[in-house]
Amino acid sequence: MSELPVPGSDPAGQPVSAIRTVACIGAGVIGGGWAAYFLARGLRVRAWDPAPDAGDRLRRTIDAAWPALTELGLADGADPAALELFPTAAEAVAGADFVQESAPEDLALKRALLAELAAAAGPGVVVASSTSGFPMSDMATEAADPGRLVVGHPFNPPYLIPLVEVVGGTATQAWATTRAAEFYRHIGKSVIEMDRELPGFIANRLQEAIWREALHMVAEGEATPEEIDRSITDGPGLRWPVHGPCLTFHLAGGEGGMAHMLDHFGPSLKAPWTRLDAPELTTALRDDMVAGAQVSAGGRPMAELVAERDRAVIAVRRAVEAARAAGGTGG
Amino acid sequence: MSELPVPGSDPAGQPVSAIRTVACIGAGVIGGGWAAYFLARGLRVRAWDPAPDAGDRLRRTIDAAWPALTELGLADGADPAALELFPTAAEAVAGADFVQESAPEDLALKRALLAELAAAAGPGVVVASSTSGFPMSDMATEAADPGRLVVGHPFNPPYLIPLVEVVGGTATQAWATTRAAEFYRHIGKSVIEMDRELPGFIANRLQEAIWREALHMVAEGEATPEEIDRSITDGPGLRWPVHGPCLTFHLAGGEGGMAHMLDHFGPSLKAPWTRLDAPELTTALRDDMVAGAQVSAGGRPMAELVAERDRAVIAVRRAVEAARAAGGTGG
Repeated sequence: MSELPVPGSDPAGQPVSAIRTVACIGAGVIGGGWAAYFLARGLRVRAWDPAPDAGDRLRRTIDAAWPALTELGLADGADPAALELFPTAAEAVAGADFVQESAPEDLALKRALLAELAAAAGPGVVVASSTSGFPMSDMATEAADPGRLVVGHPFNPPYLIPLVEVVGGTATQAWATTRAAEFYRHIGKSVIEMDRELPGFIANRLQEAIWREALHMVAEGEATPEEIDRSITDGPGLRWPVHGPCLTFHLAGGEGGMAHMLDHFGPSLKAPWTRLDAPELTTALRDDMVAGAQVSAGGRPMAELVAERDRAVIAVRRAVEAARAAGGTGG
Repeated sequence: MSELPVPGSDPAGQPVSAIRTVACIGAGVIGGGWAAYFLARGLRVRAWDPAPDAGDRLRRTIDAAWPALTELGLADGADPAALELFPTAAEAVAGADFVQESAPEDLALKRALLAELAAAAGPGVVVASSTSGFPMSDMATEAADPGRLVVGHPFNPPYLIPLVEVVGGTATQAWATTRAAEFYRHIGKSVIEMDRELPGFIANRLQEAIWREALHMVAEGEATPEEIDRSITDGPGLRWPVHGPCLTFHLAGGEGGMAHMLDHFGPSLKAPWTRLDAPELTTALRDDMVAGAQVSAGGRPMAELVAERDRAVIAVRRAVEAARAAGGTGG
């Protein structure tokens, strides 16, 4: 590589608004969903996928997503046809201003592919991986130029769920994580920049904890998948789009908030309510949770949070009922 | 008790629509929320709580909840003033057709209180506990008449979240669990009747798994409460009101559904994506999850599920944005 970047500097040299073309490497559910989102934001997409029917599948994914994206509002110039499929990953990456890799979760495959993508990308181009949980330090081992490799982990479907978790590996340069986060924010994503690698990142660790407990329950005959699903859709799942788990428990404490909740329910942490052992509820952890709840609450008083939650839960219930009642088949 | 019921028979002898008066024992966040819900369904409420300011607090809780309940639709004759506070639990229970206990999570306290309530309740009256996780077999030990004691576990706020988990203890008679489930369904709740006791029931085991993983992350400095909250509200939390964790992963499998998802991501169960160890993904468990996803899906094809999810996620995002933008203070 002739354009080795100076550590800490931004070899891209251009604002993220100059990113006009994205390479989507892998065109399954996640890669196709990313492609649909990039197209809806008015970007051009260069795609590659080794499957023989990749082109048809990608077209179907984009066509199925387009009504939803239209409903949410397209960027000026958004064109679902601004898409080209290439016979090799290197050709798709050539000429792209940003690369989003969404290959299957196979470490050996990711290592070889990311090395190829990093070598093919132009100077200042970030190569982001949609990996669900591999740390970049484990995936970047074969790349001659790992400085540009970051994790940019979306949620399914990437065209509707705003969250993207951004984190680099030990060899990732600061400009690359910064540029990835700025680009995703620029195109309307909710970005969490993690300052350290954690397998599963944040949201998938939380989601995976639920999923494993659910699998244990089914394996032991304690609950059916239908009961598990309904326990969430008709229960705590109605609160989570508006208030995450910490703010939810802040409200569960009533007027005393998180402090009352921890002091009241703290002993339940020792109860066998899940197969996951709890941490020690030290004074430091208690205080961090209480302070964190205040940050999540944005300093708003409890009555305002309760009113917000109530408005949101009612609206969410109605939204879901209407979406279910609408029926019909999708794209 | 002179009217000891015949096991398996229903000593209530009356349909659940004959239940007109409910005793709410404990008037904190949960007890007060239940009281508001019962009043909105047109029932009368007899309340007791040992706190000196219990009456004022209960009134505030009901007044804060009433606009939301009005918005959702009140039953004929619903009257927020159809509420009386009594100086003792026994007086509140006398004359009630159903008893909902929502005392603090203290096993010794619950044991003594439930024994008192069971003794004070009339024949055929169910005494349901809102406990967040104690099995009834552990709470019923001091009752002379434990046959009527069931768990009826709601979610906060009980006036908005439909889920109620119903399960008896070893001494609970079948008529009591059946009657509790029928009553809750009659007043519009989404009921899961569990056929065995499980600490934390179903939804709280799932929610507690998330919560413990979140506490571990904060304790280790891996994420802040705000990041944890946003990772859910802007991520998987947007899907959970419409599709629970099993159906969500059915969709994550693309056209291959749960089977593809388990075969593709199965190995990730061994990855350290959460502190909760995964079960062995045996063929039996895999097949149970695949069959269960079909039940959760109601036999609908993937394209229809995807279209439903997309409609719902868009509507949920808009609902939450509107609820946040509405601002103002509650109460």
